[in-house]
Amino acid sequence: MPRVNADRLWHWHMRMAQLGATGRGGVNRPALSTDDIELHRQLALWARERNFVVEIDAYGNQFMRRPGTDENCAPLVSGSHSDSQPTGGRFDGISGVLAAVEAVEAMEEANIVTRHPLEIVIWNNEEGVRFWPTQMGSAVYVGHASLHPLQAAVDPQGVSLESEVSRLRHTVDFASERSLGKPFASYLELHIEQGPVLEEEQIDIGIVTSIQGTRKFEVQVFGEAAHAGTTPSKNRRDALIDAINVVKALQELFYDPLDLVRFTIGQFEVKPGALAVVPDKVFFTIDFRHHEDGVLRSLGDQVKAVCEDAVKRCDVRVRETRNALSEVFPESVQKIVEKACSARGYTYRYLPSGAGHDARYLNPFCLSGMVFVPCHNGISHNEDEYVGPAALAKGAQIVADTLLMLDEQLAL
Amino acid sequence: MPRVNADRLWHWHMRMAQLGATGRGGVNRPALSTDDIELHRQLALWARERNFVVEIDAYGNQFMRRPGTDENCAPLVSGSHSDSQPTGGRFDGISGVLAAVEAVEAMEEANIVTRHPLEIVIWNNEEGVRFWPTQMGSAVYVGHASLHPLQAAVDPQGVSLESEVSRLRHTVDFASERSLGKPFASYLELHIEQGPVLEEEQIDIGIVTSIQGTRKFEVQVFGEAAHAGTTPSKNRRDALIDAINVVKALQELFYDPLDLVRFTIGQFEVKPGALAVVPDKVFFTIDFRHHEDGVLRSLGDQVKAVCEDAVKRCDVRVRETRNALSEVFPESVQKIVEKACSARGYTYRYLPSGAGHDARYLNPFCLSGMVFVPCHNGISHNEDEYVGPAALAKGAQIVADTLLMLDEQLAL
Repeated sequence: MPRVNADRLWHWHMRMAQLGATGRGGVNRPALSTDDIELHRQLALWARERNFVVEIDAYGNQFMRRPGTDENCAPLVSGSHSDSQPTGGRFDGISGVLAAVEAVEAMEEANIVTRHPLEIVIWNNEEGVRFWPTQMGSAVYVGHASLHPLQAAVDPQGVSLESEVSRLRHTVDFASERSLGKPFASYLELHIEQGPVLEEEQIDIGIVTSIQGTRKFEVQVFGEAAHAGTTPSKNRRDALIDAINVVKALQELFYDPLDLVRFTIGQFEVKPGALAVVPDKVFFTIDFRHHEDGVLRSLGDQVKAVCEDAVKRCDVRVRETRNALSEVFPESVQKIVEKACSARGYTYRYLPSGAGHDARYLNPFCLSGMVFVPCHNGISHNEDEYVGPAALAKGAQIVADTLLMLDEQLAL
Repeated sequence: MPRVNADRLWHWHMRMAQLGATGRGGVNRPALSTDDIELHRQLALWARERNFVVEIDAYGNQFMRRPGTDENCAPLVSGSHSDSQPTGGRFDGISGVLAAVEAVEAMEEANIVTRHPLEIVIWNNEEGVRFWPTQMGSAVYVGHASLHPLQAAVDPQGVSLESEVSRLRHTVDFASERSLGKPFASYLELHIEQGPVLEEEQIDIGIVTSIQGTRKFEVQVFGEAAHAGTTPSKNRRDALIDAINVVKALQELFYDPLDLVRFTIGQFEVKPGALAVVPDKVFFTIDFRHHEDGVLRSLGDQVKAVCEDAVKRCDVRVRETRNALSEVFPESVQKIVEKACSARGYTYRYLPSGAGHDARYLNPFCLSGMVFVPCHNGISHNEDEYVGPAALAKGAQIVADTLLMLDEQLAL
């Protein structure tokens, strides 16, 4: 059996964390930035040294393939993304790529050859920070989104995704062209939990049952600007005061004693935003998630009416910008992961993923699954994000073992 | 007696409204912008044609003096400001300057010569939009603020106030140097009410009793950023949720069934401001005003404790940035204005000013007073601000009449 090397895996993490290091413990590594391209190059060189095939597709997803014994088999693919939030951590995304790298390295060391090819993938632009929206690398690959409009997307400096993909190809000039949609036998993604459950329960491995569904809304409250010193309350149409009434009503709607509802107001903008002027406009977003589609429907469908009932003097407009139901992973893959955990004596639990991941788009495309490792205090999208070497190694070990079991169990 | 000309006054207003016109009915005329300097030039030319003396001081305040018969008398001064809010109206400030212009013009026509010189003043940078803070033209003139740091103030483009004053002097090259602090016999300022009281009560003239006091605070709420999809409520320290708790508690503190308290949250900023990230920081301002100093003290002194009690999971920091008690105008001037109103058969009422004005700084410097005219729906600091020709003319008439009565009643 392959045995992952915790030190080597940690060393990889610390090396990658230098690319885009913020100097405050985190990374800022936008998709296909110079640092991100260098990361792709270093991993491509590692693959080339082992005589693996390196391929890049039209969206900038990079694949590194260790051949199997049966060239008729589609590959068993594992990986994640390498881009980060602007003040991101050193583990989100890249730990899934490096777990796959370490899993394959352990097989190399143990002289294990699989029937299926093994592929490590780096999905491009998962965070959606540089080029909106999120997870389009996988979405384009599986045909869920179309390439052309997304290729033309530009970052805030006006640089297009397409030109950055050219720069990646130029830098990794030994990579071949990968066709979009080329089949996978399976897809396995390790990710940090980005929540506190595994750490609180002192569990080694999370077996992900589903990616919870999400509904997003934009709310605008329209009032009237007025002079702060002269306008009596009875004459005001204060957009901030009514926006707060709306938020309070939404808090009641989404109140959940079980604490399974995820309800967040992340953007909240007040105009004109002057000390002595009564606000005339508020814009805010609602991010609502739940792992049960019934709850997503019943609560989400009430948002508009709750907002409209809550305003007292202003007008409100509600727009739903996203409505995605849960993506449930097949039990067969979950059971293989469980078996791998049991065989190693690792503790595990089943749990839904609160966050979205590329595996959402892979699941309808091939047999897919996800493995979570605990992250310290559940902190993520934050420079303080931390996962220890032992936790990362256990995760990579489960990736290696699961890939081997999939290799045995999967038909051609 | 002098008789103001409503058409001529309206024509002046419409001419001035072209300088900085936004095209949507309002003006954007930053202090000593090219448009504002042109406005100063046009009024200076009007003064020169009448052989008045034009003077500009070191802060850029412009004075236009019609001589009196007794050169030992200090001038009776009237005026206001010409700068505007970024989306300001056509009357705020400039109507006080033009009322004084029309009052003097009416005296010219009626061949009335006063014992005291009459001066029209355009205070520079009253709005504090281009160069922070507000009302520094009058504050510097009377010695309440010192010139040198304020002269060096730069606008957001890095242009200094001092260099713009030079540009004004260069444009109005026939103006003499005015010494700061040169005495006034009295100061009378007409302004639009910027509130709804006079219009609602169908009253011609507001006799301003005082400028209400104000206390300003900055509140910062510190929480912790977290992933919107993964972090349970019990693990969140959501700065927005606690900021809303604080605002609700402040609304209770400032609730006033008499509707005399002015409580406004004008700036409200949420960071990092991303759809899927729990906010970790909120900054907001409190603008609190009341015409009774006792109320200013008792409520204002509770702000910090109320904020600290209201947060549930976050930290809060409260800083008081301004604490100015009410400025009460002398009854003698109020009585003269009342007499002028009665003589013309205009309806009037006494009322405090909710907004701050340059008269605040003049009041300790010389015998001062203010006259309000109604403004439509109380709307101000807004492109929809409107005052009709008849209302402006009545105001200018009261300025003319009051100046004449002051001329008679004041000793040397």
